[in-house]
Amino acid sequence: MPDAISGLSAFPITPSDADGHVDAAGLNRLLQRLIDARVDSIGLLGSTGTYAYLSRDERRRTVEIAAGTVAGRVPILVGIGALRTDEAIKLARDARAAGADAGLLAPVSYTPPTEEEVFRHFEAVAGEGGLPLVIYDNPATTHVRLSPALLGRIACLPGVVAAKCPAPEPSAVEAGYAALRAAVPPTVAVGFSGDWNATEALIAGGTAWFSVAGGLFPKTCLAIVRAVEVGDAARARALNAELAPLWDLFKAHSSLRVVYALADHLGLCRAEPPRPILPLAPEIRAEVVATVQRLNLT
Amino acid sequence: MPDAISGLSAFPITPSDADGHVDAAGLNRLLQRLIDARVDSIGLLGSTGTYAYLSRDERRRTVEIAAGTVAGRVPILVGIGALRTDEAIKLARDARAAGADAGLLAPVSYTPPTEEEVFRHFEAVAGEGGLPLVIYDNPATTHVRLSPALLGRIACLPGVVAAKCPAPEPSAVEAGYAALRAAVPPTVAVGFSGDWNATEALIAGGTAWFSVAGGLFPKTCLAIVRAVEVGDAARARALNAELAPLWDLFKAHSSLRVVYALADHLGLCRAEPPRPILPLAPEIRAEVVATVQRLNLT
Repeated sequence: MPDAISGLSAFPITPSDADGHVDAAGLNRLLQRLIDARVDSIGLLGSTGTYAYLSRDERRRTVEIAAGTVAGRVPILVGIGALRTDEAIKLARDARAAGADAGLLAPVSYTPPTEEEVFRHFEAVAGEGGLPLVIYDNPATTHVRLSPALLGRIACLPGVVAAKCPAPEPSAVEAGYAALRAAVPPTVAVGFSGDWNATEALIAGGTAWFSVAGGLFPKTCLAIVRAVEVGDAARARALNAELAPLWDLFKAHSSLRVVYALADHLGLCRAEPPRPILPLAPEIRAEVVATVQRLNLT
Repeated sequence: MPDAISGLSAFPITPSDADGHVDAAGLNRLLQRLIDARVDSIGLLGSTGTYAYLSRDERRRTVEIAAGTVAGRVPILVGIGALRTDEAIKLARDARAAGADAGLLAPVSYTPPTEEEVFRHFEAVAGEGGLPLVIYDNPATTHVRLSPALLGRIACLPGVVAAKCPAPEPSAVEAGYAALRAAVPPTVAVGFSGDWNATEALIAGGTAWFSVAGGLFPKTCLAIVRAVEVGDAARARALNAELAPLWDLFKAHSSLRVVYALADHLGLCRAEPPRPILPLAPEIRAEVVATVQRLNLT
């Protein structure tokens, strides 16, 4: 399993209706693009996949739908984060039973947890969930900062196979990657999210790109990953530079809101984000669509 | 209803077992102390009441239990916060049907919301929930900062009766209270949480103290509130100064963890916080118990 967490991990949205019922046909269209492009793994029910906003039943259903469509051709990583530890364990078991290859565990918080509480949470889910775990470090949504020391402590737990970390700013990426690599055991993969900084993080040595853009434009993102894999950093940087207008939109409006508008525009699904998250205003949506048409993303 | 949101609003814990099943007998013992002390309102299922960690069914059950015990003698404010807007509306309706007098709505977040999204969330719950609303501003847990302008906009929605704001530091309390008061309509009460800064916020003009300590030691906290009400700021300050060792423990370990240990120590319930939140370590618990015994809280 650790070997599977490398290259491009594509994170699609999870289209659902206003009541939080997942649209199987729309999800399958999104997944088919990823299978056809031969992404290295699929990150189902990530933050952009709105796991936090869906019920346990719908999350199980989502994994079942995806496992049926993917049919073993691509590893599926599934977001199993929850506020309660027992709930995260149940979600891990559900995901495993439905066909997930690994669980993505973010330390979702309400009452700010202590470091010990975060560690015990991961320990319980790793020990009782029955799924290989990817540490999902996303302080922008969880509001929990995993220090390198804590990340390293969690990464030593049996069952932890990888860490998904926010990509450092390019100016700090070499030191940032070295600090993470020094903190976690060599058997644990270290990959990155935050699409706009991911290319430099891959060039610095990151094992995987956990990508929101890759969930909608897998070929475009795979071209960057494959360039890095063959050692052509210049080409990876050139391809990434072309995407700067998309990254600017992600930074301004959030990648989630932007890819929802684009999935709708592309006719892949008619979904809007779960309320309270609103669709982009019409004038911003028009700007997003125009930008993507100019870039000719695939 | 707006008039009812004044004085001491006491926020008890919601004792529950490891599976998140609420302990009715323990809850009733906690509530009886508050009724006997004649608090001005009860803040059920606040942050310390772990609303975020309990299922919709258990939250409804909690209101039913409390409404039965309180039997109309004290207004009950109920936490109805949820990530999804439709879920918060359902929780408001559940709470109303079960006997709540008002809902406490915090803008719980995962994907960081825009100001417009926060406003629309409150608008939908105020309009469709059928309950008078208290704006529950608690950025330490929700990670959403309500600017005075946004707070004021929300406070103008029909159905909003009060705002529960973090008490400013004493050095900034007069300006902070004036800014809030200027932002919200005169018909909307402005009260404060953050026990250690609440006395000065009441003296500055705050209408209510939404109090964690008051959920366990209502008489001690009522003495402060009543002193402010009769204009005896010196006495209120002296009583509050005596509680400094308790406030230091709240700041160091969180009020939630401290009152869980104390409710257990007092024999009111055997509950531990929902995991991942851990009970205090034995040596800290011993310090908490010794402090409270020295202070002779009631």
